[in-house]
Amino acid sequence: MAYYEDTLDRIHEECGLFGIYKHGADDNQLVARTYMGLMALQHRGQEACGIAVGRNREIFYHKDVGLVEEVFRDEVISKFSGNMAVGHVRYSTAGNKKTKENAQPLVLNYAKGQLAICHNGNIVNADILRKEYEQNGAIYQTTTDTEIIAYTIARQRIGAGSIENAVFRAMKILRGSYSLVIMSPNKMVVARDPYGLRPLCYGIKEDGSYVFASESCALDAVDAEYIREVRPGEVIVVEDGMMREITDHCGIEPSRLCIFEFIYFARPDSTIHGQLVNDSRRNTGKVLAKKHPVDADIVIAVPDSGVPSAMGYAEESGIPFVEGFGKNRYAGRTFIRPDQLSREQAVRLKLNPLKKYIEGKKIVVVDDSIVRGTTTGIIVKMLRQAGALEVHVRISSPPFLYPCYYGTDVPNFDQLISHRHNVDGVCKVIGADTLAYLDLEDLPLIAPDARDTGFCTACFSGNYPVL
Amino acid sequence: MAYYEDTLDRIHEECGLFGIYKHGADDNQLVARTYMGLMALQHRGQEACGIAVGRNREIFYHKDVGLVEEVFRDEVISKFSGNMAVGHVRYSTAGNKKTKENAQPLVLNYAKGQLAICHNGNIVNADILRKEYEQNGAIYQTTTDTEIIAYTIARQRIGAGSIENAVFRAMKILRGSYSLVIMSPNKMVVARDPYGLRPLCYGIKEDGSYVFASESCALDAVDAEYIREVRPGEVIVVEDGMMREITDHCGIEPSRLCIFEFIYFARPDSTIHGQLVNDSRRNTGKVLAKKHPVDADIVIAVPDSGVPSAMGYAEESGIPFVEGFGKNRYAGRTFIRPDQLSREQAVRLKLNPLKKYIEGKKIVVVDDSIVRGTTTGIIVKMLRQAGALEVHVRISSPPFLYPCYYGTDVPNFDQLISHRHNVDGVCKVIGADTLAYLDLEDLPLIAPDARDTGFCTACFSGNYPVL
Amino acid sequence: MAYYEDTLDRIHEECGLFGIYKHGADDNQLVARTYMGLMALQHRGQEACGIAVGRNREIFYHKDVGLVEEVFRDEVISKFSGNMAVGHVRYSTAGNKKTKENAQPLVLNYAKGQLAICHNGNIVNADILRKEYEQNGAIYQTTTDTEIIAYTIARQRIGAGSIENAVFRAMKILRGSYSLVIMSPNKMVVARDPYGLRPLCYGIKEDGSYVFASESCALDAVDAEYIREVRPGEVIVVEDGMMREITDHCGIEPSRLCIFEFIYFARPDSTIHGQLVNDSRRNTGKVLAKKHPVDADIVIAVPDSGVPSAMGYAEESGIPFVEGFGKNRYAGRTFIRPDQLSREQAVRLKLNPLKKYIEGKKIVVVDDSIVRGTTTGIIVKMLRQAGALEVHVRISSPPFLYPCYYGTDVPNFDQLISHRHNVDGVCKVIGADTLAYLDLEDLPLIAPDARDTGFCTACFSGNYPVL
Amino acid sequence: MAYYEDTLDRIHEECGLFGIYKHGADDNQLVARTYMGLMALQHRGQEACGIAVGRNREIFYHKDVGLVEEVFRDEVISKFSGNMAVGHVRYSTAGNKKTKENAQPLVLNYAKGQLAICHNGNIVNADILRKEYEQNGAIYQTTTDTEIIAYTIARQRIGAGSIENAVFRAMKILRGSYSLVIMSPNKMVVARDPYGLRPLCYGIKEDGSYVFASESCALDAVDAEYIREVRPGEVIVVEDGMMREITDHCGIEPSRLCIFEFIYFARPDSTIHGQLVNDSRRNTGKVLAKKHPVDADIVIAVPDSGVPSAMGYAEESGIPFVEGFGKNRYAGRTFIRPDQLSREQAVRLKLNPLKKYIEGKKIVVVDDSIVRGTTTGIIVKMLRQAGALEVHVRISSPPFLYPCYYGTDVPNFDQLISHRHNVDGVCKVIGADTLAYLDLEDLPLIAPDARDTGFCTACFSGNYPVL
Repeated sequence: MAYYEDTLDRIHEECGLFGIYKHGADDNQLVARTYMGLMALQHRGQEACGIAVGRNREIFYHKDVGLVEEVFRDEVISKFSGNMAVGHVRYSTAGNKKTKENAQPLVLNYAKGQLAICHNGNIVNADILRKEYEQNGAIYQTTTDTEIIAYTIARQRIGAGSIENAVFRAMKILRGSYSLVIMSPNKMVVARDPYGLRPLCYGIKEDGSYVFASESCALDAVDAEYIREVRPGEVIVVEDGMMREITDHCGIEPSRLCIFEFIYFARPDSTIHGQLVNDSRRNTGKVLAKKHPVDADIVIAVPDSGVPSAMGYAEESGIPFVEGFGKNRYAGRTFIRPDQLSREQAVRLKLNPLKKYIEGKKIVVVDDSIVRGTTTGIIVKMLRQAGALEVHVRISSPPFLYPCYYGTDVPNFDQLISHRHNVDGVCKVIGADTLAYLDLEDLPLIAPDARDTGFCTACFSGNYPVL
Repeated sequence: MAYYEDTLDRIHEECGLFGIYKHGADDNQLVARTYMGLMALQHRGQEACGIAVGRNREIFYHKDVGLVEEVFRDEVISKFSGNMAVGHVRYSTAGNKKTKENAQPLVLNYAKGQLAICHNGNIVNADILRKEYEQNGAIYQTTTDTEIIAYTIARQRIGAGSIENAVFRAMKILRGSYSLVIMSPNKMVVARDPYGLRPLCYGIKEDGSYVFASESCALDAVDAEYIREVRPGEVIVVEDGMMREITDHCGIEPSRLCIFEFIYFARPDSTIHGQLVNDSRRNTGKVLAKKHPVDADIVIAVPDSGVPSAMGYAEESGIPFVEGFGKNRYAGRTFIRPDQLSREQAVRLKLNPLKKYIEGKKIVVVDDSIVRGTTTGIIVKMLRQAGALEVHVRISSPPFLYPCYYGTDVPNFDQLISHRHNVDGVCKVIGADTLAYLDLEDLPLIAPDARDTGFCTACFSGNYPVL
Repeated sequence: MAYYEDTLDRIHEECGLFGIYKHGADDNQLVARTYMGLMALQHRGQEACGIAVGRNREIFYHKDVGLVEEVFRDEVISKFSGNMAVGHVRYSTAGNKKTKENAQPLVLNYAKGQLAICHNGNIVNADILRKEYEQNGAIYQTTTDTEIIAYTIARQRIGAGSIENAVFRAMKILRGSYSLVIMSPNKMVVARDPYGLRPLCYGIKEDGSYVFASESCALDAVDAEYIREVRPGEVIVVEDGMMREITDHCGIEPSRLCIFEFIYFARPDSTIHGQLVNDSRRNTGKVLAKKHPVDADIVIAVPDSGVPSAMGYAEESGIPFVEGFGKNRYAGRTFIRPDQLSREQAVRLKLNPLKKYIEGKKIVVVDDSIVRGTTTGIIVKMLRQAGALEVHVRISSPPFLYPCYYGTDVPNFDQLISHRHNVDGVCKVIGADTLAYLDLEDLPLIAPDARDTGFCTACFSGNYPVL
Repeated sequence: MAYYEDTLDRIHEECGLFGIYKHGADDNQLVARTYMGLMALQHRGQEACGIAVGRNREIFYHKDVGLVEEVFRDEVISKFSGNMAVGHVRYSTAGNKKTKENAQPLVLNYAKGQLAICHNGNIVNADILRKEYEQNGAIYQTTTDTEIIAYTIARQRIGAGSIENAVFRAMKILRGSYSLVIMSPNKMVVARDPYGLRPLCYGIKEDGSYVFASESCALDAVDAEYIREVRPGEVIVVEDGMMREITDHCGIEPSRLCIFEFIYFARPDSTIHGQLVNDSRRNTGKVLAKKHPVDADIVIAVPDSGVPSAMGYAEESGIPFVEGFGKNRYAGRTFIRPDQLSREQAVRLKLNPLKKYIEGKKIVVVDDSIVRGTTTGIIVKMLRQAGALEVHVRISSPPFLYPCYYGTDVPNFDQLISHRHNVDGVCKVIGADTLAYLDLEDLPLIAPDARDTGFCTACFSGNYPVL
């Protein structure tokens, strides 16, 4: 029914997480802070969002389909107060999943009371666990793997002395990627899968509040000081104003942080595992300029995500960077049907070439990825119509060749243009003069500050972490 | 935040059920028919509603807070088709339960696929079962006992050869009142608790469709011929266009149909267990006139529910019935706060005495019940202000003395005026000249056509069915 | 797109008016009172509504499409306070007029400041005036004749010393029916056309507030004492806490109050020109019983509007009144399309015959009018299907034969069944055994208490007031 | 109630206009094209929008408060077709003007039928005309000067032989700034005030459609070829598929295009009077670098509007441009109250300094303007907190010193920081090390390609066009 952000043919992160714990009396600012944290993470999911608040050992929540600014108006925000809150923004790949039921936090009652669970990632053995629990009489009211996580924790909780032990035990059962921010009526429990596939960090505010977030930009938004990443495999508990860490087992698995966080998902102003995201993007451009130089007049970017990489390319190559496209920042979501607005029109609505700069020029255009190829083809066509003499496409990631099982929406083989064509073939399909990708072997170069961090590059390399 | 129907201080039925099964190809009229059935049952619950449709062995649903006409607009109705549909209207007593999450049908996935469950009644051992299931790792996402029914069926389904057997087994575990209309992707299963506490009947349409409903007025609304009540304890299965009944065990328990269905809950044009509801209400008036006569000029009713009883009183006593109140049929729900509209103003907005008829008259005013007493007091006051010489209150039910555990919202002891005062005391509190109730012993007289049917009168007598 | 109230084929009043003036400081209860007044008048218009409040010599307003309870929620009500308020409920005949733009009060700026105008009626020379003003450069932003009233007042105001004089002058120019409640920033001005075609009365509250309303039931709703009708042709001004009347000219024209107010439009508990509406309806039944007797077993009514007349018929004839139909009070507005719900289904959803009472009986069924005849035909058919031996239809008004130019929606000739058939013909079309209408000559009998009041019977008699 | 875009303390353009005329049969794509045109102009007004369509000599319209994507969903778009359409996006300065009533197009009936009027600008003699028309009996239903334009045209139309003549005559009466796109049922009439204060251009599509728009980016969005600006004072008529121009009188006044269109209002990819807007912004940076150099390590921008100027500064000065801030593109509108979110928090939510680049650096930060100064102060503070050694602020426009009477919301004297402080004073207030503005005398340098175009610089210079 509608063209969304994917007009530009991106792949998407599935979720953003936020949690805040403040010891002591109720704070009616806590929901406003969670709101700000979720606003800062909105780029990680625009489909649905929710906030749960703990107060007097009870959990209250509000969630719905929509952007944070749509779901949370001041009358909702002022209704809640508490000393803990967790929040979630969600993107979902399959159209029919766009329901309020699937929105998070998942709030539930179980043997030991209430839980609110926020999850980013994908549980690969969810179907097996689902069947196992069903044999025990489980019923499912959503279509999310988060419900499987909830069951696993609830079942492990029976014999476990505490919710954190239950989470710890559940982590030995759950396979796949997961960053979790969980709230019981009196504790906040945070965990990250043993490979650290999806990001999660924490910080502290001046008033002593603990803050957890998928990206450091959300810490900045609530004026919390970044402390460190949650370690792969780590469980953190905040209770009675104190934080405890369960980390003995951490570091057994080499970390495998999703490399695409640096290339596209994360916000440029976030720092992940020590690496400023904007720097990693500039680095892709520099590497591309070294490995895939071209004789051109100007470097331009497909905005906004291609800009830092294009600037890196310009810096390294000495070819001047120029604003090649005007971008319509209001063309995010258009609720009109494909028969009323073709894909090409939708792209034009979003990107408008600055003919004066392009006409008669040899151009390097930098984008972060090619998924299906349609949009890149339209972009090349638009540049030629604007008078470009040559169009050289540089992509700041390797070709997508393999599916992602860890919480992004890299589509099936048959939709991936790189699966159907080699680089030359893709170049012809999109109509470019030359096309070059970031080489697989150069991926480690883009995040030099993320020391001691290994990466998951499975969608490019097929090299999946052994779960 | 708002005055609802309870301006008139009634107690409420908690739900209405509807199901329709049509063998053969998809029928895009099925949802429209369910809509009509739910419209006919709207008096049984105005808080939330929902419809689930089975098509191609999959279940689709839509539910939300609101009236049927609000939740189902034509664009929703035309979206769905199928060969089975179930629907539910819901009333809930506690304010914080007014959420979309608690709306029914409860649609779930379990070991054997999907189920949509509609429930009217109350499971009295829900808390015990909840704890038991929790020990097995169950999680709860609503605050309804319907979720407990779902778990019980899902757990019993494991060893049972069929969904109907699972329902049958579950009925041995569930204690309390329940009429159930359940849909699996290829069957409809209907059941009623062994006492038949809550009503449920079925009919057949000319096209062979089977129709199940809480009241016969919903069969009329979809032009289905009333066949019979579902028997207390009975399980009915419709599958492959055929209907099967599991009834060997029926009749072991004496039936205990809620007597208040006849006094207030059911629609006057419904027939329950052979008894036309309007007749039973007229009968209450006749009995009151015989047992509690008074020398008066006119008989009036608190509209709408008191009208048939007042007419019966008039007929038996020979005192003329007169329209004593103008009723504002739009004053159902007013979304303004108590500080903007007092209870007395709210009653005045709904009922306006016809001074010309009342002035200088000795008046019998008939109402169906007194719960807290406040409204009756306001009504008596309004009649005196309108010039009534005497006000004699006749109530077409016995005093409420005991809580109801079977799915209505009779409030706690301390709110029941009859628990705090004897009849004379209530009479003084409400300011009437005389007050009389229907006598407990006369209750059987009001439904003479409901042969072989026993009644639950627990809220009046304290005589609870042994569950 | 939707079946509305007209499922039952009624004609409609076009509007209800309310005004309240309280001398002295701002009263934040004034909007709540106007809300209550409009709730009491909701039966006069369900399409749109609005309230304007005067405070500190400024006018604020809120209006929208919808019922009063939908348009005015507590957050709207508590936003406004003032010392004067006017309100309006609107029904409109033509589908495309159902817009927020056409909702009233019409609030405007003109040479002397602000005005809020509420109008009930129809200006028959609106088109002529429209053209005249256009020649002067007028522009129109609505499709209502209220805008013509506004222009007329604004133009007359130029030379007139006061708003009331301007209204008085405008009344000499405007032809047709109009009851007006107008608010300037410091006065309330109320007027009624010289024939008094549409009703308007006033009352006083204990706190000294003046209250104006289309019907006395709205005075009751705000606990104001009814004083009298506004006289035909009268202009009333309330200013500085004082009320002045301009009445020298009143009584020049004989009054011509719309007789259909008594038959159907007004609420039974309203008193108009001294006549209790419910009584006038009972009278129609008595007259019908005398003039058009029939040998029958029971008298039933088409609820709700037919009930008092049926009771009068029963009383006069000695044939017992019985509740013939169950009425679904929730089936007011259904938002599904005609192809999803036929007219017959819609009628069935609203009215359900009580077969037990009807089967094997000779029946008199009383209704207030027949417009197109379709619904009456369905009702007769339903009664026969329920087993009626004979169906005798009695209508408590004469046949509709002529269009109404004064603010109701009597449809065009070609849709009026009485214009196409004589009484025998209509009887055949609707399938009744006998059919009788209230005779034209008996109309004066129905409102004996409305002394010195003449009536407009044009829709029945063709006898139009000379305007 | 809410922080809008003005978090960043910008001044705002009041409106964007669009019109499309296609000869021949109805085109159901016309509304979709107008939608795309308005999406492209959304930056010119985010408060309300509307579209009017002409079909079969009738005008239909839809307008409401909200963004284009919110007001126009596919069901609205597919409802309308026609052979002409006009559209409008609106920004309004005063809070209480944010009403549906004030949304445009203003659609009205007058002596010669219907008109739909879209206006960008401000009529300075509106109050005088308002009073004059009032003396003639005019009434006003909005608070916009567009209603005054409508009256003026309607009045002039009386004697004028055509709508275009009426517009032409009206232009001699109206003083101030106005670009107008007007639709009568069979013509489109477009006009621009004699000084050309607000922009307006036109283009032609391959199918022969004429397209009018405030900026060329809207022509690009509908794939129309830019032809030229509408000349200051020109009237263009499109009728029967032909375009006529009334231009004899054009060029009598020197043009005075609003210079701030180049500095901030217009989209960078628009070309106005031959000048690419992005280029003019780069030019401001180059001029600033020449006139106000500084010894610094990096140049950063306040995104998005400061970016091209910062790049120009970098290019001219040789100091490298670096992305200094991460920008949250979702933080456009937040519906929470100031007491829940301080201005500083709101700025932080939108802009997040990239500490790594800023720490230990001497920084030039380029922004387009300083209005009240608060936000700039927060930005400087944020940069210092991020570790900047020196912060040098460069502003790509002169100081705001005078009010604008021509359709922007430059605030009153007392709110303008430059009116209260000289440059040194402002520098101290905002806490910068140095501060420099674009010099007034250099303004002509920024748009060298807009040959033969004079500019209005009144808000900087006080040099107002003589109207």
